[in-house]
Formats: sequence, C-alpha cells, structure tokens
Amino acid sequence: MTTRVSVDFRDGVVVSAADRGFTYGDGLFETVRVVAGRVPLWPRHRARLGEGCQRLRLPAPAMDAIHDEVLRLSAGWDDAVVRVTLSRGVGERGYALPQHPRPTLVVSASPLTLDAQAAEQGVAVRLCDTRMAAQPLLAGLKHLNRLEQVLARAEWTDPAFAEGLMCDSDGHVVCATAANLFAVFGDELVTPPVDQCGVAGVARAEVMAVQPVAVRRMSPSQLGDADEVFLTSAVRGILPVRALDARTWRPGPVTRALQAHWSSLGLPLPNRAKDRD
Amino acid sequence: MTTRVSVDFRDGVVVSAADRGFTYGDGLFETVRVVAGRVPLWPRHRARLGEGCQRLRLPAPAMDAIHDEVLRLSAGWDDAVVRVTLSRGVGERGYALPQHPRPTLVVSASPLTLDAQAAEQGVAVRLCDTRMAAQPLLAGLKHLNRLEQVLARAEWTDPAFAEGLMCDSDGHVVCATAANLFAVFGDELVTPPVDQCGVAGVARAEVMAVQPVAVRRMSPSQLGDADEVFLTSAVRGILPVRALDARTWRPGPVTRALQAHWSSLGLPLPNRAKDRD
Repeated sequence: MTTRVSVDFRDGVVVSAADRGFTYGDGLFETVRVVAGRVPLWPRHRARLGEGCQRLRLPAPAMDAIHDEVLRLSAGWDDAVVRVTLSRGVGERGYALPQHPRPTLVVSASPLTLDAQAAEQGVAVRLCDTRMAAQPLLAGLKHLNRLEQVLARAEWTDPAFAEGLMCDSDGHVVCATAANLFAVFGDELVTPPVDQCGVAGVARAEVMAVQPVAVRRMSPSQLGDADEVFLTSAVRGILPVRALDARTWRPGPVTRALQAHWSSLGLPLPNRAKDRD
Repeated sequence: MTTRVSVDFRDGVVVSAADRGFTYGDGLFETVRVVAGRVPLWPRHRARLGEGCQRLRLPAPAMDAIHDEVLRLSAGWDDAVVRVTLSRGVGERGYALPQHPRPTLVVSASPLTLDAQAAEQGVAVRLCDTRMAAQPLLAGLKHLNRLEQVLARAEWTDPAFAEGLMCDSDGHVVCATAANLFAVFGDELVTPPVDQCGVAGVARAEVMAVQPVAVRRMSPSQLGDADEVFLTSAVRGILPVRALDARTWRPGPVTRALQAHWSSLGLPLPNRAKDRD
C-alpha cells in the first residue's frame, strides 16, 4: 500500500529511539479522512488535539501547518486517511518533562477505500472481554497509550466481526476499539459517557452537534434492547451495527439520516459500483 | 551525556515512525544496572520481560542475545544504566496484531552516577495527585503505556523531592513514579500489591525473595505510622525515605540490611568520596 510519511514537516519515515512517543507513549494522535483535498471534520480534530495538548501539557502545535501537511501528503487522492501523531519528542531518561520540549510531528497518509457493504447493510460486532480502566485524567483523549485497545482487538481474528465493543470496569458498554457507539431507544439517541475511559471521537462530537443525544451508561443487555445501533468514526463515518451476538438489527431511520448528513458534509458513503472495480 | 544505542542489534538511533511502540505504546521495557560488566539482577529482568511478552502476546525475544547486547553497549563503564525496549515492531494502520510480527529491540546505555547522599541519608518524597487506574490485564508489567507516570512526575519540579508516591483510584499508596515502596511496621515488612496497577519491580522481587514480606494495601496516613519507609529500584537500589510531608524518618535497620544485601549482590552503594571527585 502506498503510504506517504513526513516527520516534522520533512519527508522521512523514522523517529528517534529516544522519542517519548516510543519510550512512554507520551503523545496524541488524530486519524482524519481527506476527501478531494478537504478535511470536513478538521475543526473538530483541531479542537481535540488542542485540548489534548493542554491536558498533557504539550506545547500547542502549529495547527494550520499541520492541516496544510495533511493536504500535501494526501494530494491527488480522492479519498485518503491521514494519521497525525504528536509526541513530546526526544527526552532524557526518566519521566520528568523535558525543560525545553521539542514535540515530534509525524503525518502519514494512505489512500482510503471504505467498505460499501458495511455502510449499507451494517457490520457484525462482538463484545470484548478486555475492559477499559477508569482514568479521568486521560479519558476522552486520543493519546498514544493504547494497549487496552491492542489487547481487545487481539481477542478475535475472524473477519466476520468488524469491531469489538469494550466495557468499562463496571461492565457498561463504552465504545468499540476504534469507534464510538450510539443506540436509539424510541425517540431517544444515546451514547455512553467518555469521562472515565474511552475516546471522545470527532464523529461522536459531530453527531452530538446536529441532534439531541442523551449521554448515559448502558449494559450490553440494555444495548440489546435498542431499536438501532451504530458506530461512529472520523474515517469510517456512520456504520450501522447489524449483529451483536444473537441480536440482529436492520439499519434504521436515525442511522440513515446521519449517513445522509455525513454525505452532506462532504464525507460520502463508499460508492458500491466503484468499489467493485 | 554519552549514550550508546542499538536498534535490532545494530548501531542506530532511530525506529520507524510506524513502529507500534511509537503509535500505540505497544511494547515493554526494562531498565537494568550494569556494574563492572555484570547485571546482577538479570535473571529477574529476564523473567519479567518474558512474562510481559506472554501477557502482551509478543514473540519471546532472544534473551541471551539481549543480555550480550546490554554488556556490549556498556563495556568499559564501571557503572551503567541500560534501557532495553521491546516493541511489537512496524504495523499497518489499526490495532489488530500484525500477522507476522517482527518486534523492535532498542538498547540504550549510559554511564551511571548514583546519588550517595540519597542512599545514605534518604530522600524526601511527595504524594502525587495523579492516581493509577485499575487495569489487571496490564498491572505489574513494565509496558510502554506510561502516561500516568508522566503526569504524576509533571506535578513537581522542586529537586528537593526525589520521587512522588502514587495512589490507586481508592487512595491506597501503591508505588513511586519509578520505584516500588516498602514500609516496616514493627517486625513486619509490607509492600502494596501490584495486581491492579503499578509495576512489579525486579528490585521488589529481590527483596521479597530474601525476606518475608506482607503484601497489603495501605493509606498514606497508615504509611505515616511506619517505622521505616524505603523505595526499591533496579537502578537506584534501596533508597531510604527520610520525609513525606511533615513526617520524617531516619534510615532504619531493615533498610540498612537490605542495602548491605544489595552490595553483596554486586550492586554497591555509591561511593561518597568518589562521588565528590
């Protein structure tokens, strides 16, 4: 697969082995979708990255320059996924913050081909055994400490499952390994809180900006009672869930309306015909 | 400061920006002390690294080759600290484990000069506000997800404090940011459990191998009632705690006996006269 990478705005594919991103997972990332030279959700990515820098005491990066770099590396591709990683940079031995931090910025772009069938018919998901620990100081951030997600994703290899749902230590469903979770109960759209664990996704924020959403905990069995269930991701958009264990759903009207909103933002559903080429 | 670094057993100072150590903190590390060409605690480092690989589903590395590399990079130094980092290596986008993982090994060696006064008279420590989340799947491991320690260590810059004690989410003291904690109450030596959070230090394991230790939770105020308090670290050895808030201690007989044991292992206390050179 073609991948274009830059490090600190210069073409390059390596970072120092003493980078605190490598030694401590000390940093943040964003994964953005670029369609025809635009990043429709950029303001939300930018806001989350900025908040993450404040909370981790990282110097705020040059956001406009990052945006330009995302576009530069994805130039010429109709649809692309670009990962932006910002670490605290090279450090001496020990956890203490460097006195003069020089963060490292890695931007990595690849062409994106989304799964048309997943968007149309929905995906099957499973419930992970790996639970997420409650850490309010890090909750919501898309930081580089992702071993919980690695362990959860390692629980299955069957490609029939597109995602795994993760619970907090009390057994409430919070999100998928790389997506947020929404459920429709009658007139109400619900998403779990991410103030103790989980990532506050930019797609989740977009959904919450365009319609009323109740933020509420739910158990897996309560989720089974939902009328519609879908996942949200900045890259994959609105993904209907069609199966969790024995429970099955068909994509419902709330899911379809949000998919239409996504298209109106400039983040189209995958084109089925094109997908078959 | 002189540092010698190798990556995958070859002299080098960089890793791929797509290394999962950098993108997810997906890996483990050991920090070992080498004295006169020997790593007295190597069997314990080796055991912990091996257990960590099993728990994170990393292929077991060539332990003897790592040991040789530690010695090669620290050759010629009387006292050295060597960090061994093992990540899952380069991965595609996404949390799923690579089908054919090729872990990355970074070995980084520096000369070590320990603080003689700290070992003799003890260190002052503070209580950190940053608490550690309970995650039994990762507890005990020296993995690369260390943002909690980074946040805790960022709470103070006053060099009067050598370490910060960290509590779990229930407010029990567990360890320091980069050391384990022991307390003496009468005839009993106590250390907190590390089955929910914290690192199972190799120096902690050595202490527990040479004398009876009760593994028990304690609150900061209970810790204040201790007769002796000390920290343990593979690099810094047995460090008496002489002050926590208003409470002060003098190094006691249990602490001194363990320091003598450390010297007998081939891990001498820093030489005060030499330190003043």
